[in-house]
Amino acid sequence: MPVVLYDLCGADEARRFSPYCWRVKMALAHKHLGVEERATPFTKIREMVGGVSSTVPVISDEDRTISDSWDIAVYLEETYPDRPSLFGGEGGRAAAKFVESWVNTTVHFALGNLVMKDIHDILGPDDQAYFRESREKRFGTTLESLHEGREARLDTFRKALQPVRQMLKNQPWFGGDAPLFADYILFGTLQWPRVVSSFRLLEDDDPVTEWFGRCLELHNHLGHKTPAAA
Amino acid sequence: MPVVLYDLCGADEARRFSPYCWRVKMALAHKHLGVEERATPFTKIREMVGGVSSTVPVISDEDRTISDSWDIAVYLEETYPDRPSLFGGEGGRAAAKFVESWVNTTVHFALGNLVMKDIHDILGPDDQAYFRESREKRFGTTLESLHEGREARLDTFRKALQPVRQMLKNQPWFGGDAPLFADYILFGTLQWPRVVSSFRLLEDDDPVTEWFGRCLELHNHLGHKTPAAA
Repeated sequence: MPVVLYDLCGADEARRFSPYCWRVKMALAHKHLGVEERATPFTKIREMVGGVSSTVPVISDEDRTISDSWDIAVYLEETYPDRPSLFGGEGGRAAAKFVESWVNTTVHFALGNLVMKDIHDILGPDDQAYFRESREKRFGTTLESLHEGREARLDTFRKALQPVRQMLKNQPWFGGDAPLFADYILFGTLQWPRVVSSFRLLEDDDPVTEWFGRCLELHNHLGHKTPAAA
Repeated sequence: MPVVLYDLCGADEARRFSPYCWRVKMALAHKHLGVEERATPFTKIREMVGGVSSTVPVISDEDRTISDSWDIAVYLEETYPDRPSLFGGEGGRAAAKFVESWVNTTVHFALGNLVMKDIHDILGPDDQAYFRESREKRFGTTLESLHEGREARLDTFRKALQPVRQMLKNQPWFGGDAPLFADYILFGTLQWPRVVSSFRLLEDDDPVTEWFGRCLELHNHLGHKTPAAA
């Protein structure tokens, strides 16, 4: 029986942009698990997952339901220990928590300043209303004013990724010689703008662009299986 | 035979402030290895280590000499596999390289703006001349002008540590339930200002301060065995 994944979608159901859902999709593929994806709009999450969570990802595996991308990765590692490891040992799991903390604070913050309105624009009407209200409250300003002058904030985002460039001088993946969940954490976060926005965030010759391109090719080009923003 | 460690010192030989040497001292203690430290001024490094390196740390272990804190940690892990692990597996080693990349870019950069003149002031005369010339060239300004107005840059340093605070909500160490080399990487970097500067970098109730205090107590209070700045 495949694992059911509730996966955030835009007005176009094929457009899957949640950074946290992408982390889980890559983790499920890494573990060679069959997946049945259910396209889930923001405002339908609670109803679709039977009330267990107001955010996605949520997975159902046999009789278990798990939410939160980190908890899902840990669940998969513990439940399927004979499949390829997501962490490469206990030290890797602990350090991946730091990678997650770094991405979710530093990188998300810098990105939020750049693509919030683009996310809004790909949503259906009910989701747009929810998204505008919740995000304008969080950022303390309108989506339109966040959008204006974003070119001037691009440099902050690019600089935030400097530690990744430094690491890539020494090894091709966060996981070392091969990708691990730590790679999927940042991958999911950069897949997010790729799917929602045509705003060019990174230069073509940036080592992070090269790494991201390699991530897109993993698991039979899984990352390509959603349309990129035009 | 103890491992010989060439350890950077100030005009007062007891003042050991190198972030990279501290990483290695903690790693040697973690591996329960005996150590013979040799206090090494900046301008005596090459001569004292027999020409193999112009930077410390350098260790001599039996007939082998290794420089660079990362390479030393990897050497210790591979040479003493039966002692407590520094990485907690291959995934931990790979992810620790990201932690190092993050600390060496983001945290060092923010710190460099705050304590460069303090470092200068604890050095002997020959080291002061070398340090002033090399650092003023690197930063493109005088040590005095870097020093002025540093209060205004303190907030940038504190914000740079936000991912650590986020991680500490979930686990007590980078290593998870117990410290690993990834902890020693950031510890060494924060030990550096503690030894050279009385400038108060972190609030007492900052979770990073609490974590740093626990690091100081490790390995029989090793981190306390150098005088803190008055």
